[in-house]
Amino acid sequence: MPQLRQDLVTGRWVAIATERAKRPSSFTRATAVAVPATAQCPFCFGHEAMTPPEVLAYRPDGSLPNTPGWEVRVVPNLFPAFGPPDGELTLGTDGPYSTMNGVGAHEVIINSPSHENDLAQMSIDEIAKVIRAWIDRHQTHSANPSIQYVLIINNHGKEAGASLEHPHTQLFGVPVIPLSIQEDLDGTRRYERQHGRCVYCDIIAYERRSGERAVYENEHFLVFAPFASRTPFETQIIPTRHEVNFSDMTGTEQVAFAEALHQLTGRIGNGLNNPPFNFYIHSAPCHLAKGATYHWHVELLPKLAIAAGFELGSGIMINVATPEAAAEFLRGVDVYQPHQSTVAPAPH
Amino acid sequence: MPQLRQDLVTGRWVAIATERAKRPSSFTRATAVAVPATAQCPFCFGHEAMTPPEVLAYRPDGSLPNTPGWEVRVVPNLFPAFGPPDGELTLGTDGPYSTMNGVGAHEVIINSPSHENDLAQMSIDEIAKVIRAWIDRHQTHSANPSIQYVLIINNHGKEAGASLEHPHTQLFGVPVIPLSIQEDLDGTRRYERQHGRCVYCDIIAYERRSGERAVYENEHFLVFAPFASRTPFETQIIPTRHEVNFSDMTGTEQVAFAEALHQLTGRIGNGLNNPPFNFYIHSAPCHLAKGATYHWHVELLPKLAIAAGFELGSGIMINVATPEAAAEFLRGVDVYQPHQSTVAPAPH
Repeated sequence: MPQLRQDLVTGRWVAIATERAKRPSSFTRATAVAVPATAQCPFCFGHEAMTPPEVLAYRPDGSLPNTPGWEVRVVPNLFPAFGPPDGELTLGTDGPYSTMNGVGAHEVIINSPSHENDLAQMSIDEIAKVIRAWIDRHQTHSANPSIQYVLIINNHGKEAGASLEHPHTQLFGVPVIPLSIQEDLDGTRRYERQHGRCVYCDIIAYERRSGERAVYENEHFLVFAPFASRTPFETQIIPTRHEVNFSDMTGTEQVAFAEALHQLTGRIGNGLNNPPFNFYIHSAPCHLAKGATYHWHVELLPKLAIAAGFELGSGIMINVATPEAAAEFLRGVDVYQPHQSTVAPAPH
Repeated sequence: MPQLRQDLVTGRWVAIATERAKRPSSFTRATAVAVPATAQCPFCFGHEAMTPPEVLAYRPDGSLPNTPGWEVRVVPNLFPAFGPPDGELTLGTDGPYSTMNGVGAHEVIINSPSHENDLAQMSIDEIAKVIRAWIDRHQTHSANPSIQYVLIINNHGKEAGASLEHPHTQLFGVPVIPLSIQEDLDGTRRYERQHGRCVYCDIIAYERRSGERAVYENEHFLVFAPFASRTPFETQIIPTRHEVNFSDMTGTEQVAFAEALHQLTGRIGNGLNNPPFNFYIHSAPCHLAKGATYHWHVELLPKLAIAAGFELGSGIMINVATPEAAAEFLRGVDVYQPHQSTVAPAPH
């Protein structure tokens, strides 16, 4: 009989349907469809004029803005879903309905000049620079009183929503606290009232003790498959120290986070034949309510299943692979080796 | 600047991103990928032994169970996500986590003997029989004390999760109240406390008065694009009379509902070149709490966009088409004519 499992934070149920289960190795046919190559990639060296002017770039060679020479480059999205960030927030109504204008931010972080290498192929040093850019932009937008939440996301592969081939991540600044975050905050508060502890810290302690769903651990981060995984190979990266805000990471933690991202995306890509996936960083809202707490983390969801009528209508995901089998499989996968590492990775 | 719109029931925000908008006619390339044909269709006449034994069939010719001659046939899903319905509900724990066994139901309603005709091509009389079967099974499972909720869904096209070509719908009986329903119930209660009225009845009144988002109306049902549509061409079918339970429809209402389903799926299919879509029926839980109310309806979501990292991480959908443009487009579409109608459709 299928098993229902409840997410400890949000209270959401998922159905682990072993009767519909596939073996983890059967997922390896799910290669991501490459995004069609464009004659001129707007994210490659020499094409800087094809994007809006950069809002941030790391240029160790002292090169001029919007010219080659950068290591990481951040530009506004050409077709923004939110923005501009300096607009005035205006509330409105239409009959019984409420509206708001979309003040906010929508930026593209171009991970590196390489058109080929994504986080699984980049060096730890290179990934740490991407993380530094995420933090820079996260802090900038968090200071904007019109922006309530900053979400950093990655879409890998066409079926996961990527529209340009050159590896990049995206930052969204939105004028409301998203429901997904509010559910996490509500669950964190509820658990703290009942148990006097952080629900995420308790999850970390149990997952370390059990080990069944653990994929990888280093000095500062645990990578594991959540007990109530919504999709096959759903995984999280979480700081093992209680940390509310993503952007409060120390330099050492940033390097350990880079290693965890590299390990996870390498194992997913190598073990499952480069499937499409999405990940996002769940951190505290910009202006966290007094007395509230949170514990930031990354959630990664391979696009290996379709959310169909049942999932859309119920919010209950049917997962055909157990997280225990997924974690065991990912523990055994060889990770791509960083092709260049100028910073010693954290011990693991 | 993009506009945020709040769903009046759930409080969810969506972003209507006009900067990323496409013209409604540009969605017509989204033809559903046909499910691969199988040598022997388990849902066609003469192949009844390929499915588990039927739990319901309408056989006006008095034919024997599990033989040809049926008009609508209901069988348990061969790979059930929930079930069996007569199992004992068992709660469990694993460390801090809660589990439950998946007592419930997962059934397939084979809409008709026709391998080709779906709701858009079937006659009103034929669709009314499918609705009768949904109600029969809904009532049967609602009487089971282990089942908290019965969800009826339709997956159309491979990208929408359909795995067999022969048109069919599915029924799920689950031992919990799904979060999506709980959000609707919470929103309905909140609105009633504040305004003393049913939120859905107020939406119907406003949508009729405004007309901007209306697609079709008959004596008993309104078809419209919701103000905070999550995807291009999201549409709802709602009874214009306050009605809590789907299964309480009168015979006349069932025929009018058949006509509304035919009108909507015909306009979507004909206007948008047969796109993949999902729909589901949101009705009250089997055992509605005392004093609670609801207003049942159908939600239809064409699969014309990918829920990517931002949507998954925030719960905020970015919709590139306004519901006003979608409704205007659908109002102008020719509906497939029923090829056979033995019951006069409700006036409209």
